[in-house]
Amino acid sequence: MKPRMSKIIDGRKIAEEIQNELKQKVKELKNRGVTPQLATVLVGENPASLSYLRRIQKSFGAVGISTDVFKLPKNVTQEELEKKIAEISRDSRIHGILLQMPLPKHIDVTEVSEVINPNKDIDCINPLNVGLFLLGNPRFIPCTPLAVCEILRRSGYDLKGKEVVVVGAAGRVGRLTTLLLIKNWATVTACDIATRDLANHTRNAEILISAVGKPRLITADMVAEGAVVIDIGVSRVEDPERPGKFKLVGDVDFDAVKEKVSAITPVPGGVGPVTTAMLISNTVKAAEMIEGLRS
Amino acid sequence: MKPRMSKIIDGRKIAEEIQNELKQKVKELKNRGVTPQLATVLVGENPASLSYLRRIQKSFGAVGISTDVFKLPKNVTQEELEKKIAEISRDSRIHGILLQMPLPKHIDVTEVSEVINPNKDIDCINPLNVGLFLLGNPRFIPCTPLAVCEILRRSGYDLKGKEVVVVGAAGRVGRLTTLLLIKNWATVTACDIATRDLANHTRNAEILISAVGKPRLITADMVAEGAVVIDIGVSRVEDPERPGKFKLVGDVDFDAVKEKVSAITPVPGGVGPVTTAMLISNTVKAAEMIEGLRS
Repeated sequence: MKPRMSKIIDGRKIAEEIQNELKQKVKELKNRGVTPQLATVLVGENPASLSYLRRIQKSFGAVGISTDVFKLPKNVTQEELEKKIAEISRDSRIHGILLQMPLPKHIDVTEVSEVINPNKDIDCINPLNVGLFLLGNPRFIPCTPLAVCEILRRSGYDLKGKEVVVVGAAGRVGRLTTLLLIKNWATVTACDIATRDLANHTRNAEILISAVGKPRLITADMVAEGAVVIDIGVSRVEDPERPGKFKLVGDVDFDAVKEKVSAITPVPGGVGPVTTAMLISNTVKAAEMIEGLRS
Repeated sequence: MKPRMSKIIDGRKIAEEIQNELKQKVKELKNRGVTPQLATVLVGENPASLSYLRRIQKSFGAVGISTDVFKLPKNVTQEELEKKIAEISRDSRIHGILLQMPLPKHIDVTEVSEVINPNKDIDCINPLNVGLFLLGNPRFIPCTPLAVCEILRRSGYDLKGKEVVVVGAAGRVGRLTTLLLIKNWATVTACDIATRDLANHTRNAEILISAVGKPRLITADMVAEGAVVIDIGVSRVEDPERPGKFKLVGDVDFDAVKEKVSAITPVPGGVGPVTTAMLISNTVKAAEMIEGLRS
């Protein structure tokens, strides 16, 4: 495998590259009289969600897409939430809808997801869109799996015929990622908590993808020399260098693993920023579809 | 692995076992005043489809479920077909709808599938139901993958932690099967046409599943001693014993492979009959759901 980029894959740089391409597309849309518009729906006041939404808003803004933020109280009923989403779904000014997770426990996520206009479902959570994705006829591709494939593609790695191992394949993101890799003709081994000898599988991976959310799950002895490692996991752990403070880490024991591999994504600054870029990309696609500029 | 049954897994016997259980459920439904009813929709006069439908009708009949057959001409328009399916979808007498594939090339299968009432979609082809299945919240489970898991379960094989290889994983049935196996905590390696060293993977399988439709694809040297082999593939080939006549064969070189394995499904008489039993099972489930006897 010949990497085009340095060993540590710079997700922020790839995201910037993509966002510059999207900025151009947004300009063209505006020239045709179409102003792409995002709506985010937030239930409750979770600080992590608020800070995520601010980052989303900033990234969309940088590309020329503004955001309507709809905040609903933590105790909103299923009916009220669905009514609000139905209203946004009908609003012809809005092209993309992002429903911030997690939702409070009393809300049925699947039922709410079904109310999102499938043509505006940029995060691909409406089961109808999930089904079209599985059937190979997708309206939108889920952002995290799409980011993984885009990172590999833009770093010069072709998936066809590659030995790929997904750790955490039984989770939502793991399942969607496994499917997209299969679709791209990789030979995918789907591992999860019941896998008997995980290291035996991961050591055979040319491309290793972890989507668990468990720090230091993937250690150096589990990775082949020269492999490519994509770390989807995100955990919040105490920062040893700043007592009482926290930092984000991935599933991979980064410092040790990076010495063995030919390429690796860091956390933060790896899959995350590219996932946001894919969310913007889906919003631009939605605006083009809705305005009939694209089939 | 300890098989409960003889080496050659008798799909017809398993199907009969399941159908006897279902017969009891149908009786109970009828006692409560609910008569489960199947509707099949056939476009054109394909002889293979007609003979398949007759078998379906017979199997459902044996359980006490009668079938309405709707035949439409080969040149039916998309609109007419969707109108007919919408009509059947609304008919409160009908609990399950089976749309016979393949459809003529001028018909958009996905769009037609979306018209099938999701509560009557016993073959799980409406993208909404496919999405709910992928999201782990299924209304119906697709019949062929369900048959594979049911065969393994009723033959005494647990999937949890098992090394399973799916050959033909990129096809529709292969993808759905891979997902269901992952959901059942198997470690699944998804292989297809681009897989570099297929035999190297298949030889490591404790359970080997093939869903390609290519005769003698899986030869004895590709299978581990004592493995369990499930053959989903079906091909029509010339019968050497009856010149000019045809017979059905699976993907597996059955006579040679059966000497090495601890269990194997034949073709015909393996996955096929159990898939039909799962179709009946989904119809009974649909009747129970629609009549509110089940959540």
